[in-house]
Amino acid sequence: MIYLAHLFGIIAFVLLLIWLLHYREGIEYDSNNALRVFNVHPFLMYSGFIFLAGEAMLAFQTVPSERKTKKFVHMTLHLVALVLGIIGLSAVFKFHDERHIPHLYSLHSWIGIATFCLFGLQWVFGLVVFMLQAASGTTRAKVLPWHKVFGRALLFMAVCAAETGLMEKSSFLTSLGMLKPHQRQSDLINFTGLAILLFGVFVNFSVGF
Amino acid sequence: MIYLAHLFGIIAFVLLLIWLLHYREGIEYDSNNALRVFNVHPFLMYSGFIFLAGEAMLAFQTVPSERKTKKFVHMTLHLVALVLGIIGLSAVFKFHDERHIPHLYSLHSWIGIATFCLFGLQWVFGLVVFMLQAASGTTRAKVLPWHKVFGRALLFMAVCAAETGLMEKSSFLTSLGMLKPHQRQSDLINFTGLAILLFGVFVNFSVGF
Repeated sequence: MIYLAHLFGIIAFVLLLIWLLHYREGIEYDSNNALRVFNVHPFLMYSGFIFLAGEAMLAFQTVPSERKTKKFVHMTLHLVALVLGIIGLSAVFKFHDERHIPHLYSLHSWIGIATFCLFGLQWVFGLVVFMLQAASGTTRAKVLPWHKVFGRALLFMAVCAAETGLMEKSSFLTSLGMLKPHQRQSDLINFTGLAILLFGVFVNFSVGF
Repeated sequence: MIYLAHLFGIIAFVLLLIWLLHYREGIEYDSNNALRVFNVHPFLMYSGFIFLAGEAMLAFQTVPSERKTKKFVHMTLHLVALVLGIIGLSAVFKFHDERHIPHLYSLHSWIGIATFCLFGLQWVFGLVVFMLQAASGTTRAKVLPWHKVFGRALLFMAVCAAETGLMEKSSFLTSLGMLKPHQRQSDLINFTGLAILLFGVFVNFSVGF
């Protein structure tokens, strides 16, 4: 199960890169081409945020070391995911500002921003309770199942955010006539979406769905 | 948790009805207005398929009766969900035919059709193994956790299908100028999406996420 999670995670990463670099305009935060700025968003939200957060969830099973190290890797990967997620989010705000598009109006943006805020809270909560051990051993043991369940729900929400994001972009491209049904690029977007979905499912399977 | 699942399930149902009846063209399978035919699709895929399948998953906890009856309700609700889902799917195929739109090209359609086919297989599997008891008691006990895990993954996929569907429709409406950011209808679609997402999360919580 863990191998399938890694596999689909990497497949999604490769497909997303092919899409953004070959079929779209490339990835650049400080670009005059607003579309290159936009592309930082899907790139970092998946490979920075979702993929690293998923791998962080698997760290207790994949890191061949003592529990303290596993925990440290789990926390650090989540922190990197959080930071890259913030850069990915600011890229899309920058794009909307440049194009004078209103912020946070779509279902994708609502799911995404809700997920990201809750993820931030979950990280701070984990840091205080489990790393800094502000709570007693008994409390920590009581709270741990909730930390896990909440983390899994957040991964589920993050995958929903990714799928709606791909759907929003491809619908806009389709209605602008820039993407035709059953074209190679259209299928590539769909396979990327399926790979991200399967990554989410197999990470959830691996940590005990 | 179960009450929250019911609550969000019913909120999503009400919001979806308001959207389709008040803001869109209404719901009618045999209509000359292709948009009314289309609306059968979101209505039945959520309230027929996702909501009933979710309630079927909760039946073991909500039906106050012996195990045999719970199992029967679980199976029957899933069967009704399957039948209503088939009608909901044929509505969108009918709409695409009338408007000469290609079939099954979007990420939404790929996730949706994959989920629905796997759901059909899962139902037949459940019928043969657990209802008709084609397998021995030991095999059934071994297979049950997989039946549950697979069912939860399917609910997750079905919610992703719903979110991408709402996103596809609202993106098309937006690019046609028929839906403006932060308009009441736009927020209504987003709240519907969030309610469906929370229904999925709380059903999953209730059956032991």
